[in-house]
Amino acid sequence: MALPPVRSGRILPAAEDRRGFLKRTLALAGGGAALATGVANTARAQGDPAILTLPAHSKGLGQPVAARAYGLPSEHEKNLQRRESPGLTRVSQASVAFAPLQGMFGTITPNGLHFERHHQGWWDIDPRQHRLMLMGLVRGPKVYTMDDLMRLPSVSRIHFIECGANTGMEWSNVAVPSVQYTHGMLSCCEFTGVRLSTLLEHCGADTKKGRYVLAEGADGSGLTRTIAMERALDDVIVAWGMNGEMLRPENGYPLRLVVPGVQGVSWVKWLRRIEVGDQPWYTREETLHYVDLMPDGRHRQFTSVQECKSVITSPSGGQALLDRGHYNVTGLAWSGRGRIKRVDVSFDGGRNWQTARLETPVLTKALTRFNIDWVWDGSPALLQSRAIDDSGYVQPSNAQLRAVRGARSIYHNNSIQSWLVAANGEVRNVQVG
Amino acid sequence: MALPPVRSGRILPAAEDRRGFLKRTLALAGGGAALATGVANTARAQGDPAILTLPAHSKGLGQPVAARAYGLPSEHEKNLQRRESPGLTRVSQASVAFAPLQGMFGTITPNGLHFERHHQGWWDIDPRQHRLMLMGLVRGPKVYTMDDLMRLPSVSRIHFIECGANTGMEWSNVAVPSVQYTHGMLSCCEFTGVRLSTLLEHCGADTKKGRYVLAEGADGSGLTRTIAMERALDDVIVAWGMNGEMLRPENGYPLRLVVPGVQGVSWVKWLRRIEVGDQPWYTREETLHYVDLMPDGRHRQFTSVQECKSVITSPSGGQALLDRGHYNVTGLAWSGRGRIKRVDVSFDGGRNWQTARLETPVLTKALTRFNIDWVWDGSPALLQSRAIDDSGYVQPSNAQLRAVRGARSIYHNNSIQSWLVAANGEVRNVQVG
Repeated sequence: MALPPVRSGRILPAAEDRRGFLKRTLALAGGGAALATGVANTARAQGDPAILTLPAHSKGLGQPVAARAYGLPSEHEKNLQRRESPGLTRVSQASVAFAPLQGMFGTITPNGLHFERHHQGWWDIDPRQHRLMLMGLVRGPKVYTMDDLMRLPSVSRIHFIECGANTGMEWSNVAVPSVQYTHGMLSCCEFTGVRLSTLLEHCGADTKKGRYVLAEGADGSGLTRTIAMERALDDVIVAWGMNGEMLRPENGYPLRLVVPGVQGVSWVKWLRRIEVGDQPWYTREETLHYVDLMPDGRHRQFTSVQECKSVITSPSGGQALLDRGHYNVTGLAWSGRGRIKRVDVSFDGGRNWQTARLETPVLTKALTRFNIDWVWDGSPALLQSRAIDDSGYVQPSNAQLRAVRGARSIYHNNSIQSWLVAANGEVRNVQVG
Repeated sequence: MALPPVRSGRILPAAEDRRGFLKRTLALAGGGAALATGVANTARAQGDPAILTLPAHSKGLGQPVAARAYGLPSEHEKNLQRRESPGLTRVSQASVAFAPLQGMFGTITPNGLHFERHHQGWWDIDPRQHRLMLMGLVRGPKVYTMDDLMRLPSVSRIHFIECGANTGMEWSNVAVPSVQYTHGMLSCCEFTGVRLSTLLEHCGADTKKGRYVLAEGADGSGLTRTIAMERALDDVIVAWGMNGEMLRPENGYPLRLVVPGVQGVSWVKWLRRIEVGDQPWYTREETLHYVDLMPDGRHRQFTSVQECKSVITSPSGGQALLDRGHYNVTGLAWSGRGRIKRVDVSFDGGRNWQTARLETPVLTKALTRFNIDWVWDGSPALLQSRAIDDSGYVQPSNAQLRAVRGARSIYHNNSIQSWLVAANGEVRNVQVG
């Protein structure tokens, strides 16, 4: 592939002072003139003041190992953090903190940036006190300690989790400014735990009469969701591990349900009870909330699977291109029904599409990272991505989605996201057909 | 699979007070007697004082979202941390902090627990000041800012990193007490960056005459390593991303080399310079250190690939089984040559072997998690794991390794690890043939 010469440009938050940036990078304009033998000499030849002399870190003794027994990000990365959308809910205990997708890489969400959505706040529950009960249509109800569970056969799987309300503001034509707020209720981790099917077998669940299970959380919201037995016996995990360590308190420590492909509300946190029954429970969070208001005025219930979806995470709303030339356009794709088969990207609002590169491994019900080369010529551009999963489902346009679903939903908006790059390089969220 | 009834036992650090544990769990002895309708009722029937009344977290309002904009582990997990081995080196800036493998799950290492090995301490380098120079046998030497690099086509890949000295103490028959100290210089992350081959192409490297590249770090140790051009053009990455976020300062922020399958010292941190040359540089860290003293008194040099290896991480040295019955025996396997094909586990010191379950995906040059069921009958047991990679290489026994390599090495000990479970349940590191 033919790459452009090294250019002095990058993607910046629009708010950052550009003059400082240009001043810093213009010094490099004559870069790469002559063969050189060392950093300092070459730097001097290029007139880059930043490396004319050896920096302190190239001369002295740094920090010792285990200076932080549990490591933290660089001081220079402090702005990459979860953010609450102010005013979204009345109290912050029943709110959302969005993951900063615009500054993230790959597919694994570091635990410190995993999105948060609570119904009555989070707690740091003592695992020695925590119990999980299995009951209902079972031969013998059981109460498990964490130690009991961790002795059982375990599995580790990488899966995405997405809140059913992710991208929900777009229903109302509210052009939320950044991908953090449009799509940031999305994360992907390697979860470790015992399969729910193992526990159901262990308790002698009646999986014929017992066509459903109920999952209940231990927090004050007493959140409950019904899950079909077919799914419960498939790939659902009662998990304690997340990316190699115990779940974080905000994510249900010490125990949560992992329901691959299904919206986050079913991934019950601080899981304390599984009940086997012969009909759905029709709980508050599956009848009053997490339902889709259709054009005919009726509510769709139990729409739990997250359909195929994708988004360009960079460049994205609130960022700015500071120079023409080559960019690595990158984003995420996922499907609650299986694997991503292909992602197409358009730079002209859907008139032409190019196929993006998918990073491997492409896993079922997991985030897939895509990348595509783009040379920006300085004229306005409309960036879109469109994912296709291995069931053949194609991510719909805004118009296609609304033709079926209307415009009064809150949940399950998986339509194509559009980012408009203006001639001055600023990127913003626009809604197009 | 037939599982045992729920038992009151777990794997504990030997140091923990067992009486407290037994007291807590004995309350569950009559568990699961009758069909019940709620947590509190069932708990009462079972006489478990821990859940007779609703805990505070089931009644009140918890912590708000973004209480910690960057999340941290539970307060109850404070003991799971990186640890320095006291006295291993003269100063902690040239030392090691080991990852706590005994308490970790799956294959992804959370960034906060990634092992550390520095030669002159770590720094938190300002990415706006950092530069990477490509020079030597290239058409045009270039100096890249971080912004330049991040505009180039990027890739994301999951790979393990292991220090060449991992498990080095075992050469001297020092039975290091725990897997944290025997194997804890091992981590596995999803790395994002630009392929080194892309940069070499960008600079017009002479990849015929230029048979080698040199990588140099910006820290005070000025660490340098030679890498063969064939490898440089294959899967080496100039990386800034680690598990979705920027590299941590201890791991080379803002830029490090990722050399899949190769020992950690070649994954040069704080990467500032790549030079293309026609012969190896024979640097300090590839001639004086990171060489293997063979039985004939000569040193092997440039032994960079980490051969196939595995270890049971739980139960492991320093832990204790507190009860007979079923355990999930779990561990890690990896190979610098490719994918893990199979892991066998023995509970009787190698007389009989059973094939373990491998968690998917099984990726090339990445950690693979294995699990196997075990029912402990209370008699002494000698636990071992043996990995086989897709090149057909079989992890050697201690005796097999020493027959070839002698006993005077520091580096590249990939022999089978043995954990002895005593009749009292205590697990310790033993060296067997």
